[in-house]
Amino acid sequence: MTESKLYNLLSAHGITVAPYKSIAFDEKPEIDFFPAALKIESPKVVHKSEYGAVKLNIASNEQLQAAKAEIIKNVESRGVKLDASDRFIATKMMRGEELYFGMVNDDVFGKTILFGKGGVLLELYKDVGYISLDAEREEIGRALRSTKISKLLDNFRGLGFSIDGAVDFVVKLQEFIRKNPTVSEMDINPVLLTSEGLIAVDARVTFDDKADVKTRARGRSNFFDNRRVAVIGASSDPSKVGYAIAKNALNFKGEAYFVNARGGELFGKKLYKSVPELPNDVDAAVISIPGKFILQTLEELVDKNVKNVMVISAGFKEVGDLEGEQKLIDLVNKHNLNMIGPNCLGYYKGEDSLNLTFGSNNVLDGDIAVVSQSGAVLAALMDKAFQYKIGFSHIVSVGNMADLDFGDLIGMLESDPKCKAISLYVEGMSNGKTFLEAARRCKKPIYVFKTGRSNESKAAAFSHTGNLSGNYEMFKGLLESAGCIMLDNIEALIFRPALAKAKNILIITNAGGPASILTDYIVDHGKSLYKLTDENIRVLDAALPFNWPKANPVDIIGDAMSDRYEKTLEITQEFDGVDLIYVVVTPQFMTDGDKIAELLLRKWKKPVIPVMLGGSDLQKGFDLLKNNGVLSFDTLKGATELL
Amino acid sequence: MTESKLYNLLSAHGITVAPYKSIAFDEKPEIDFFPAALKIESPKVVHKSEYGAVKLNIASNEQLQAAKAEIIKNVESRGVKLDASDRFIATKMMRGEELYFGMVNDDVFGKTILFGKGGVLLELYKDVGYISLDAEREEIGRALRSTKISKLLDNFRGLGFSIDGAVDFVVKLQEFIRKNPTVSEMDINPVLLTSEGLIAVDARVTFDDKADVKTRARGRSNFFDNRRVAVIGASSDPSKVGYAIAKNALNFKGEAYFVNARGGELFGKKLYKSVPELPNDVDAAVISIPGKFILQTLEELVDKNVKNVMVISAGFKEVGDLEGEQKLIDLVNKHNLNMIGPNCLGYYKGEDSLNLTFGSNNVLDGDIAVVSQSGAVLAALMDKAFQYKIGFSHIVSVGNMADLDFGDLIGMLESDPKCKAISLYVEGMSNGKTFLEAARRCKKPIYVFKTGRSNESKAAAFSHTGNLSGNYEMFKGLLESAGCIMLDNIEALIFRPALAKAKNILIITNAGGPASILTDYIVDHGKSLYKLTDENIRVLDAALPFNWPKANPVDIIGDAMSDRYEKTLEITQEFDGVDLIYVVVTPQFMTDGDKIAELLLRKWKKPVIPVMLGGSDLQKGFDLLKNNGVLSFDTLKGATELL
Repeated sequence: MTESKLYNLLSAHGITVAPYKSIAFDEKPEIDFFPAALKIESPKVVHKSEYGAVKLNIASNEQLQAAKAEIIKNVESRGVKLDASDRFIATKMMRGEELYFGMVNDDVFGKTILFGKGGVLLELYKDVGYISLDAEREEIGRALRSTKISKLLDNFRGLGFSIDGAVDFVVKLQEFIRKNPTVSEMDINPVLLTSEGLIAVDARVTFDDKADVKTRARGRSNFFDNRRVAVIGASSDPSKVGYAIAKNALNFKGEAYFVNARGGELFGKKLYKSVPELPNDVDAAVISIPGKFILQTLEELVDKNVKNVMVISAGFKEVGDLEGEQKLIDLVNKHNLNMIGPNCLGYYKGEDSLNLTFGSNNVLDGDIAVVSQSGAVLAALMDKAFQYKIGFSHIVSVGNMADLDFGDLIGMLESDPKCKAISLYVEGMSNGKTFLEAARRCKKPIYVFKTGRSNESKAAAFSHTGNLSGNYEMFKGLLESAGCIMLDNIEALIFRPALAKAKNILIITNAGGPASILTDYIVDHGKSLYKLTDENIRVLDAALPFNWPKANPVDIIGDAMSDRYEKTLEITQEFDGVDLIYVVVTPQFMTDGDKIAELLLRKWKKPVIPVMLGGSDLQKGFDLLKNNGVLSFDTLKGATELL
Repeated sequence: MTESKLYNLLSAHGITVAPYKSIAFDEKPEIDFFPAALKIESPKVVHKSEYGAVKLNIASNEQLQAAKAEIIKNVESRGVKLDASDRFIATKMMRGEELYFGMVNDDVFGKTILFGKGGVLLELYKDVGYISLDAEREEIGRALRSTKISKLLDNFRGLGFSIDGAVDFVVKLQEFIRKNPTVSEMDINPVLLTSEGLIAVDARVTFDDKADVKTRARGRSNFFDNRRVAVIGASSDPSKVGYAIAKNALNFKGEAYFVNARGGELFGKKLYKSVPELPNDVDAAVISIPGKFILQTLEELVDKNVKNVMVISAGFKEVGDLEGEQKLIDLVNKHNLNMIGPNCLGYYKGEDSLNLTFGSNNVLDGDIAVVSQSGAVLAALMDKAFQYKIGFSHIVSVGNMADLDFGDLIGMLESDPKCKAISLYVEGMSNGKTFLEAARRCKKPIYVFKTGRSNESKAAAFSHTGNLSGNYEMFKGLLESAGCIMLDNIEALIFRPALAKAKNILIITNAGGPASILTDYIVDHGKSLYKLTDENIRVLDAALPFNWPKANPVDIIGDAMSDRYEKTLEITQEFDGVDLIYVVVTPQFMTDGDKIAELLLRKWKKPVIPVMLGGSDLQKGFDLLKNNGVLSFDTLKGATELL
């Protein structure tokens, strides 16, 4: 497509382009916009500048006519014969900050608009915002604001530009892309930010017939709604996964049936020899049997009206058996089942005391839902959660994620009142649009940790679940604009929901240096230090040595022992507006670390996080706290990483 | 200074400026460079654009003459009467990437050149390089390369620009600044990157008489060279600091004298009643007595030929007593003493078994020197170091740093062969130039952690030692260009020296997901995963289940128990090129965490860092490792933070 045709097309969709005029080979050019640039438009001349076929700073129509003649001379002197099929384009040369708008057709998220600083700096600063084709104005605004360059749009230095104008521009681009479905890639670079708004001054579009990613829409029953469940492959051999699942399933408030070809009993319950023997109307089945029996078993389960299945068994896509996995998918689709797995740990629902995992049975009922693509990460988080008394409303191990994926599950969790926050451990996904749709609709906070940021770990993740991780920056940008909260460590998936509300933090410390370091980290995490009121200072003054600094961090001085920590904690617990208290203990001359640790075991009204900053001297106190399930740390950086 | 005078000045120092011509009020302007801009140069017109006193895109001398007439009309129509004292300046309008060069006179580092992207983006991206006025070419190059925009200079896309040209430009700026000592601030914005090199097209310089920071040069004896030391304020009261110091000093290989006005004995040694009673030729004294006695005591110590003193006592600048601290400084300077403190923890020298601190006596001899502005941070690091069997060649607590500072100490540590790495905990400093000079000369690695990055923590640090922290970005930039290594957590000060050499890392894991996360963090820290050779794979194949992924991370599969960990560790220990091995343990169905921990206690040839990724299930094993001094972690992020 020639530049002038493209300008026509963009203009037709309301996108302002610089004034331009297409000029025929034999035409005497006349324009009314200066300064101008003149370029040839001919398939015979690809590298225009090298052929002397671009003229800049044209100030009058005389200069324009001369420039045209010169271009013809330059090109023909290089042996290219021009004729009436060749044209020229004159464009107005404009000044303004150079921005970039583009589009790619991503395998996971489909057609996605990119925004950033234009020109070569796009590549240097990688300051890019990603905008879903389905994003509405508010989400577009968030995506634009995720870039540093967007500050220019936000009435920077009173220049009068507004984010609104840029949102309009994106909305028009979305429309242009929707109406021209063969557009596969686009670069409008630069778009100039001028006093008359955003003006496209150079554009390149490529076309192909690769379709945009579609959102999936299959009517599904709720995966979490199960009264009668069957454990297929329940085993009396404690070294078998089927044993652990059956044992965990015993607490279920509904009916659990165990199936094993050998028959007999397990945990005092009957072992059905086959699925056909089961009563009718089994809601869900967890399957832990050799791969070759799975399809047959699924067919039999369908006859029992099963809706939801968990395939624990591995040996599919993750070891290269794409065909086997596809057969599973086809069967699931045919019968409109919900499936998690294959190659998964199972699922847990707190309200029903239903633990259909082969993970630990040390799980508490609570209000966080976790969905994980890694069974091991899930196991580690469950183990840690139990230690710190954190409970779950739902735990889902999606394994290879052949059927139910994050998007589907978010939708189901959204409607469950027991779930207050959704935490996702993501390695890769294939239905990005479905995910974003679900995230947009979800009113609950969605926390996301994604691995596969580096090329090295992408390779590792692929060999693990067979899911290819995409571009992390795009993933992060799109999810954040759709309202998700991205985390940079997995522990935050279980701790952040409770800590998210802590905005104003107070530090109690026996040393200034560590408190100052902690303050830096707190600020890094977007939190603030609570500012002591005059009244706060008055109360503390009565309890502390004269030389405490009368500010937060509340430095109770190096000779503080547990009694002074206690008094200070009791006083500061009552400060309105303090959401969270860090207690920093450094091993000073008289510090009684063990006693301070005991004090910190007490149930305090506000959340209190101890930081025992040392090694051997404070180890005993630190161990005491951890072993009693008090979230505590021995490094300052670690102490803030869950914020 | 008018723009044309400034251009003259810059040109005279070899700095290329855009072609320009200064034009008198009555002169008929003629130039030979187009397109040009014309501006008024008159103290009566400050806001030139608003007064219509700037004309752009002038293409001919006729247009120039018209532009001049128009400017006069515009300005006079706003009621400003122009006369023969007013002038004009015509400059060539040029195109090129806009860069920024500037200079500030910093309180800590003195005159410092700034480099970055020019125009408004300087403010948005904060992509700034900081260049010391004393930096030579190599250091200038490092400073330039610390910015993202510098890639444009480094033959970006074959454009032919070179860092060398920019270094030349900076060298000329340094010369300009040195020869014009009243230049107090400078902005050359933009400097255009053109095919003819760097061309300054707009500049602003301010002048004042504030002198540049000077480097301090006082001949000093070596603070660490002590055979006979005195503990002033040695106390028999175990709750007193003077007791701890005396006790710690007992191991000293030289002579230690104790002084206490009450006389008697302490730890079987005589307590001298006063300094005059001491033998002559005491090299060093550590002073822990009330502030009012200190000056007198110091004078008495001078009579004993003391060279080095440590003032432990607090109550000086950090509580607002600037006068008291100045008296101390004056006395120290008068007698050419070395002093650390006041308000410090003391010092330790491994080779001499000399512990003159009131910190722990659990300190091992080793090869890391630590200098800290916070006694509590130091105490925490010493405690941790002891737990993990890390030894120190020197430990210095500088307290208020009234005399000996980081720069002085680096110089002394540089010349001590027992010290292999220098780690600094910095809150603030006043002699930035001295520091940079010492860092440049030092051949040993210098690791630096600095607090006071945020405004909140700057305030906290100030109330702590009375040292004001400067701009962190400038601090980091200048130190890195001078060869220092900046850290982002204090524990790295003691662990990094040993881990710095680990470039190629191998991961052994029983789960893919966590290994993929760990890989991301490893890459974040600039390290790489070791690539298995065919031979490596062959050997591992014989020991591992068929479905291990045949790559690093070496996933030994979820059913791995301690025997498989053991075999894999034994095999991978022998891989040439592996510098460090992470062993990731997740709590899977059959994981025997305690046994794996026992295995990891073994002395392995290569450094092995266990990551016990869970909570209660792996707690026992994790505790076992920590209590036996094996550096180990229970989070993936924490596990890489020392790299």
